[in-house]
This record gives sequence, structure tokens and C-alpha cells, in this order.
Amino acid sequence: VKANTKKTKLVRGAKRASYDEDVINKILDASFLCHVGFTCDGEARIIPTAYVRINDAIYLHGNVRNQMMQALVDGQAACVTVTLLDGMVLARSAFHHSVNYRSVVLFAKAEVVEAEKKPPVLDALIDHLVPGRSKNIRPHLQKELDGTLVVKLTIDEASAKIRSGPPIDSESDYELDTWAGVLEFKTSIEKIEACPRLADNVVLPDHVKNLVRNKTLQQSFSRN
Amino acid sequence: VKANTKKTKLVRGAKRASYDEDVINKILDASFLCHVGFTCDGEARIIPTAYVRINDAIYLHGNVRNQMMQALVDGQAACVTVTLLDGMVLARSAFHHSVNYRSVVLFAKAEVVEAEKKPPVLDALIDHLVPGRSKNIRPHLQKELDGTLVVKLTIDEASAKIRSGPPIDSESDYELDTWAGVLEFKTSIEKIEACPRLADNVVLPDHVKNLVRNKTLQQSFSRN
Repeated sequence: VKANTKKTKLVRGAKRASYDEDVINKILDASFLCHVGFTCDGEARIIPTAYVRINDAIYLHGNVRNQMMQALVDGQAACVTVTLLDGMVLARSAFHHSVNYRSVVLFAKAEVVEAEKKPPVLDALIDHLVPGRSKNIRPHLQKELDGTLVVKLTIDEASAKIRSGPPIDSESDYELDTWAGVLEFKTSIEKIEACPRLADNVVLPDHVKNLVRNKTLQQSFSRN
Repeated sequence: VKANTKKTKLVRGAKRASYDEDVINKILDASFLCHVGFTCDGEARIIPTAYVRINDAIYLHGNVRNQMMQALVDGQAACVTVTLLDGMVLARSAFHHSVNYRSVVLFAKAEVVEAEKKPPVLDALIDHLVPGRSKNIRPHLQKELDGTLVVKLTIDEASAKIRSGPPIDSESDYELDTWAGVLEFKTSIEKIEACPRLADNVVLPDHVKNLVRNKTLQQSFSRN
């Protein structure tokens, strides 16, 4: 990962920054939802979408006529942000309130993934959402693959930023009789709602049971 | 809200779109984390940050030297996206997998909030995170207010998009013996971690107890 480029170098809050590939990959693997920033007529737009990391790249997909996909394949540098919110940090003053989080910002030009490489990438995305699921659903149809654009964004110009731990107050505020601390968030699968049109005798499969049992969701937008 | 402007009109998935002010406000009030898109040297950048809605506007804040804040006050149209992830939709084919979500995208030029209006906006933000907290912390210091830029983005050009309900599969796939359904997410406050430097005899206050007891977190990034 190219550290400290003009775009990725963190100026403010630099102590919380990391350019370490393992740190970046771990955050990317803990979520499946990113926000993609691109420009349209010179103005910024943001679309939330799913992604999967495979080796040194993340992959996005969308309908071939999707505005975001069209913008990405136009050759512009996109900005992708992944944000995991871990808690609220309640300080003794409004000024020092904060959130605990893990985030990654990466910049990359999208490369179109060739036809024959689309199925394994889309399968990897499904298995990123629910491990083991791609083998439990019917194969892709050619018309589905033809209508789907898949792009690769190499993780090259990227940075991670992490805040954890208790509030950091002004030194003179610690003696105040104000409660301060961290409220830690956790997201779990609260409910499994079977499709009302499930065929007869279809039971909840092991790959879904495992996901729920392993409590692999760290939080919304987060698995691991 | 100006519906169907060139930027907010949803082309793809238009059936899931809404331009209704109440729908938009309800989604905005259910979260406190947004992603702000802006341009820097002609390229898109995204920064996650906290916000609060007051009447017909959302408010962002940051250090006066913050890059995002500087870009916003430069007069460009920013794009703000709020995304609440409600669940994973497991279909009978990879193609029809989806997520249930509520999202808002809004475009606006930031207006700088005058000095005397900053304290009530910042208090509203604190109370948006933890209802009732602003009265339980020490007042703002003038130097803190002076170092903080607060901007208003009027909710004018905006759209909401919502997906809910079961998977929608290809008609011929419903007879497959594949399990399909929705895994609903829920975020809660898992743990309350008091600051290790809490003054003697400070107990957990009612406003924090209430937040946890009311389970007001719908999910990460979400309160209500």
C-alpha cells in the first residue's frame, strides 16, 4: 500500500491513522457495505453498495446501466469508504464527545472484470455475506452475468483510521462529577424470516444456522 | 423537498424511491452518522461524520482546519448519504440476493452557522446521540466554539430509498428446494464501559440508563 500520498495522508488525527496492509484488510473483511464516491458533472455523488475483498483488491458490481458503474468505468479515480461504528464516546464536555470506529478510505480507478472471471467474484461476494452459500444456490444464468458489470479496485492508495478506548477529556475536567465512558455497540442477527414462498420441506440450512450461531456479525455492515 | 431533480430522480429501482419529507426525515432521525461526499482537485472524497437534523436542515461540524469543512464552505454542492442496513436478503440465486435498507441521499451547499447559533446546534447533536445529555455536561468554552465550524445543509434536493420484505426471485426459481429469506439485523448497546478516570462517587446517570433501557438503537448508526 502506497502510504502517505497526497490523498491518503491523514493530516488531522494522524495518530489514529494506519497504512498497514493487514490493518486495512482486516477492516475491509469485517464489513460488506461501502460508500462509493464518484463525480458526475464535476459534483460528488455517493452510493452505498456491497463489496468483497479478494487478495489485493475489492470488487463492486451493478447493473450495466447503473449510473455509478458507468461513472466508475469512465476511468475516474473513485473514493471508497468503509466505516464500522463501534460505540459512542461520552466525554465530560460536548467538545470531547466522539465515536469509536474503524474506517478505511481508498482511492482507485476501476478495472472491468472479464466475463469468465465474473462468476468466481460474484460467488466470493455471496460467500462473504453468508459463508458457504454460493454452493447452495442455483448457478448463474448467462443473461444474469451479461447484465452485470463487475469492477476491480486495487487496494493501493489507502489508509485506515481507528479510534478505540475511553474519552479523552481536558485535564481539568476529570475532576468533574460527570459520568463519562463508552457505550459499545453490537449488531446481531435478531430474526430469521423465511420467504413466504418457500417450497415444501425446505429447512433452514447449516450455512445459515452457522452464521447466526457464530454471531459473526460484529455490527451492522460488519462480519467476522 | 424538490422531487425529481436531475440529481435526485431515481432511475434504477425507482419503485423503491420516495421524495416525501416525512419519509426522508424519519430516516435521517434514525441515524447520526452520514457519509459526506465532496470534491478536492476535481476528484470525489468521502468522510463519515456525525449529524443532527433540526427542522428542514442537517448540521455538520468539524475543526476549522478540517479538509472536509474547508471544502464544504467553499460553496460546492455536497452529497450527503445516510444508510441504515436492516438485513440481508437471501434469494434462490446469487442475482437476486439483496439487502434490506433505508437510505437518504441529499445534495446541498453548506451555509456557515453564525457564532451565537453554534451552542444550540451542538447541544442538539449531543442530545441526538444521547437524549438529555447536553444538560449533564459542562458548558461549551469559548475557545472550543471558536475552533469549531458548524454548517447547515438544507434538506431541499433529497430522495429516500427503502427496500424491505422477502426476496423477489425469478418466478421459475420458487419451486427450487433452496432456503430463502431475510436475516434481520439489530444493533444494541452491548456494554457500558465507564471511564477509568471517573471521579469518586459518580454513578451512571438516568439519561444513559434510559438510552440503554429504551433500546433506542435500531442498529449501528441508528437511533429511535
